[in-house]
Amino acid sequence: MRVWDKYLTERDKAVHGLSGFSARTGFGKRPAVLIVDVNYAFTGDVDESIEASVKKWRTSCGHIGWAAIPHIQTLLRSARASRIPVFFSTGVDTRPDHFNRGAWSHKTRRSNEDTLVKVEGVRGNDIVREIAPLPHEIVIEKLKPSPFFGTPLPGYLIDLGVDTLLICGTTTSGCVRAAVIDAFSYNYRIALVEECTFDRFESSHALNLFDMNAKYADVIAIDEATDYLAGVGRGLYDAKIAFPAEVPA
Amino acid sequence: MRVWDKYLTERDKAVHGLSGFSARTGFGKRPAVLIVDVNYAFTGDVDESIEASVKKWRTSCGHIGWAAIPHIQTLLRSARASRIPVFFSTGVDTRPDHFNRGAWSHKTRRSNEDTLVKVEGVRGNDIVREIAPLPHEIVIEKLKPSPFFGTPLPGYLIDLGVDTLLICGTTTSGCVRAAVIDAFSYNYRIALVEECTFDRFESSHALNLFDMNAKYADVIAIDEATDYLAGVGRGLYDAKIAFPAEVPA
Amino acid sequence: MRVWDKYLTERDKAVHGLSGFSARTGFGKRPAVLIVDVNYAFTGDVDESIEASVKKWRTSCGHIGWAAIPHIQTLLRSARASRIPVFFSTGVDTRPDHFNRGAWSHKTRRSNEDTLVKVEGVRGNDIVREIAPLPHEIVIEKLKPSPFFGTPLPGYLIDLGVDTLLICGTTTSGCVRAAVIDAFSYNYRIALVEECTFDRFESSHALNLFDMNAKYADVIAIDEATDYLAGVGRGLYDAKIAFPAEVPA
Amino acid sequence: MRVWDKYLTERDKAVHGLSGFSARTGFGKRPAVLIVDVNYAFTGDVDESIEASVKKWRTSCGHIGWAAIPHIQTLLRSARASRIPVFFSTGVDTRPDHFNRGAWSHKTRRSNEDTLVKVEGVRGNDIVREIAPLPHEIVIEKLKPSPFFGTPLPGYLIDLGVDTLLICGTTTSGCVRAAVIDAFSYNYRIALVEECTFDRFESSHALNLFDMNAKYADVIAIDEATDYLAGVGRGLYDAKIAFPAEVPA
Repeated sequence: MRVWDKYLTERDKAVHGLSGFSARTGFGKRPAVLIVDVNYAFTGDVDESIEASVKKWRTSCGHIGWAAIPHIQTLLRSARASRIPVFFSTGVDTRPDHFNRGAWSHKTRRSNEDTLVKVEGVRGNDIVREIAPLPHEIVIEKLKPSPFFGTPLPGYLIDLGVDTLLICGTTTSGCVRAAVIDAFSYNYRIALVEECTFDRFESSHALNLFDMNAKYADVIAIDEATDYLAGVGRGLYDAKIAFPAEVPA
Repeated sequence: MRVWDKYLTERDKAVHGLSGFSARTGFGKRPAVLIVDVNYAFTGDVDESIEASVKKWRTSCGHIGWAAIPHIQTLLRSARASRIPVFFSTGVDTRPDHFNRGAWSHKTRRSNEDTLVKVEGVRGNDIVREIAPLPHEIVIEKLKPSPFFGTPLPGYLIDLGVDTLLICGTTTSGCVRAAVIDAFSYNYRIALVEECTFDRFESSHALNLFDMNAKYADVIAIDEATDYLAGVGRGLYDAKIAFPAEVPA
Repeated sequence: MRVWDKYLTERDKAVHGLSGFSARTGFGKRPAVLIVDVNYAFTGDVDESIEASVKKWRTSCGHIGWAAIPHIQTLLRSARASRIPVFFSTGVDTRPDHFNRGAWSHKTRRSNEDTLVKVEGVRGNDIVREIAPLPHEIVIEKLKPSPFFGTPLPGYLIDLGVDTLLICGTTTSGCVRAAVIDAFSYNYRIALVEECTFDRFESSHALNLFDMNAKYADVIAIDEATDYLAGVGRGLYDAKIAFPAEVPA
Repeated sequence: MRVWDKYLTERDKAVHGLSGFSARTGFGKRPAVLIVDVNYAFTGDVDESIEASVKKWRTSCGHIGWAAIPHIQTLLRSARASRIPVFFSTGVDTRPDHFNRGAWSHKTRRSNEDTLVKVEGVRGNDIVREIAPLPHEIVIEKLKPSPFFGTPLPGYLIDLGVDTLLICGTTTSGCVRAAVIDAFSYNYRIALVEECTFDRFESSHALNLFDMNAKYADVIAIDEATDYLAGVGRGLYDAKIAFPAEVPA
């Protein structure tokens, strides 16, 4: 029983069965982790209901975002223990004249809020403190949904010889979806870690997981991800990245 | 009442109301039309039920694809009457060793069929005859979901000075979705023509339209598209493309 | 008489005459200015001989860079008076482990210097003070030669509807050359402003100007650039960028 | 003594010595070969003087192109013996209205010739017969200088896990240069095989080799290339590409 099953029509289930989609990709030998946009603009500044949070932060997912944080911490611990590169993506602050927003201005009624401080001391584009990047990890600042679009990410992955991406974060139907399409288009193997991935819309979350699992990525449980990371050789990337001798607990 | 309403949960509707998404982009001044992957691999060789068609053509949408064809013809007539550039995307034939498929091999159980002739005289990647490109129109051959990825499309649009894309085709949750994300990322105004767009899954079709309408594109009716095209100046692109003097009926 | 003439062989001159290269592109209607990498790493911290400067700053062009600054100031004054967007590119600081340098580490014997402070208070990647960007202008931070590669620049230019780029900066044979190839590949009209462009190698400077003038760009004098900018309509981009009411002198 | 030495000024030699450029990149473990644009448009239809050839084929390099062919054959034999992937790039035929040429129309006085048949039975964009691609090899059709720009090449290289590119072909100052800049920007190790690389201009050829050797690539002799290819493990790519059991002599 998957989260998307209840949204599929009977015909969808029949067609899915016939079409041959949703085969298992499987893992490669050289993974990296990509955590998409888990910043305060998408979680809100505190763990509260999405209805309350979205009034302050127009893109917030509220409580459901905070519920993913402990799982992302688990994923991070596992990646760090195996000295696997971790990429975090986040947004770029909006200019006062909104020029750098481009097409993002087209579809929102609340873009005028994007340069406001909603809560003193909280910057929307800061990665949530509980999963803050370590100095050797890589933050990809981006203007568009995909962390691959107009950023150094493709070149970094080539330089590292990565063949597999463990992707998670938010929103499932937005930047995660865009990341997965681009990663797929560059021919990476992709696993999407379900407990670490969230969206403001329940239906979009479920159906986007279905779409991605059908065509582009394996939607897996956190345990599968950590088992895999524990099993890849430690030190795969030591020639390229100065991992700290001691991993913070 | 939109096609996606019945798939949204009550919480989704409440959050959508609060979030400020789904504003109207509106049209620019220099449009082009992009028809995504309306070829026999996605419609099947004849108009029949999807359940029957998908057995021959693993990516087929069956009848629902054929139902879109008259609407795409209407859109084409309108674009051609106004001498607006039309781009068609389609796939590249699979090599015998499947090398050029890349990650597409990861998620299907039926990739061994991709080099077979299913119906004598019908090539999966041929655009459906009823909407065949005219010689001055542009076919974008692509290997990945997005017609922008690894193709000349971005440069063509810049050369033409296009600011607005009318997008349609198939599948809503696959190549159309990918096209829309990339067009949005390049900062184009996007309208998605609903009657001309289809998917093999009813639920994915509806929710992907919802996602795109919320964040990236206006999901519009064919009449809005043809009204718009009738209103833009004729001859916008005559310096770049040799449109035929006489448009075929 | 052009700067490259003395480097061409007699056969080169004959072949050039026959080949039909070096036609004039001419200007379009919507320009932007792109100033490539005129930062302290490429000029050195003070105006001194290249032989002295390059000992401190391994990429420095020394005096010849400082000689270009007044011309770049002229270009900036002209662009600002006509409210034309100005893009500046510069580098990203090297990480302690050099990970973000990628292939740049392959060809230098001095990469160990890239994280050193050479002169207190001078950061190599800062744009030279005399031509510092104004707040409404756009700085493109890049890791690779071309300011188009892995950056938001393509999307910005599309959003603005730019059709012509006035390019200058440094080095002629490095990042300027890469910028010109990419701008050409995206189908922009390109003029390269000769007095504002410099290189550490006299021969490479001259021959790269020859190559670019032959195939990709018009190599023009600063007066042609300012005449053109004075003649385009003021206010072309006012809807997108908040130009200051008063231009600093 | 290198081919570029005679073009460098005394100051250039001194600055080059101080700057630390031109270190050796060295080879990686997973090579591919990229042969740029060795087609009839760049060699002419027969081996004759460049002055004669360029009158028929405006981009021809004439005799110097034909002189490189035996060396490219040597490189091909070596790559094929080790089952290393070979990519060939070439151009796309020009449309009657020249739309797909884009900015190429800007700088030539002879673009009206691009749709003419110059010699019956010879298509300018066909790879020269003596080095014709085998069925398992990959032809990259491109519209712009770089074989990476708007093509599937980046995704193919990622799928294969390539880390090193042996590049050659023509023109040194045009498409080879553009290929090298992009390969460098994606962080590949690059060796440029000197005897297999040519240009219509003697000076541009020499100085572009200098530039690339200084900053982006090792300019090596054909013997170094074949020694390297003989030493890499055979069968590195057998899981992805169906190499023929028997290599043609």
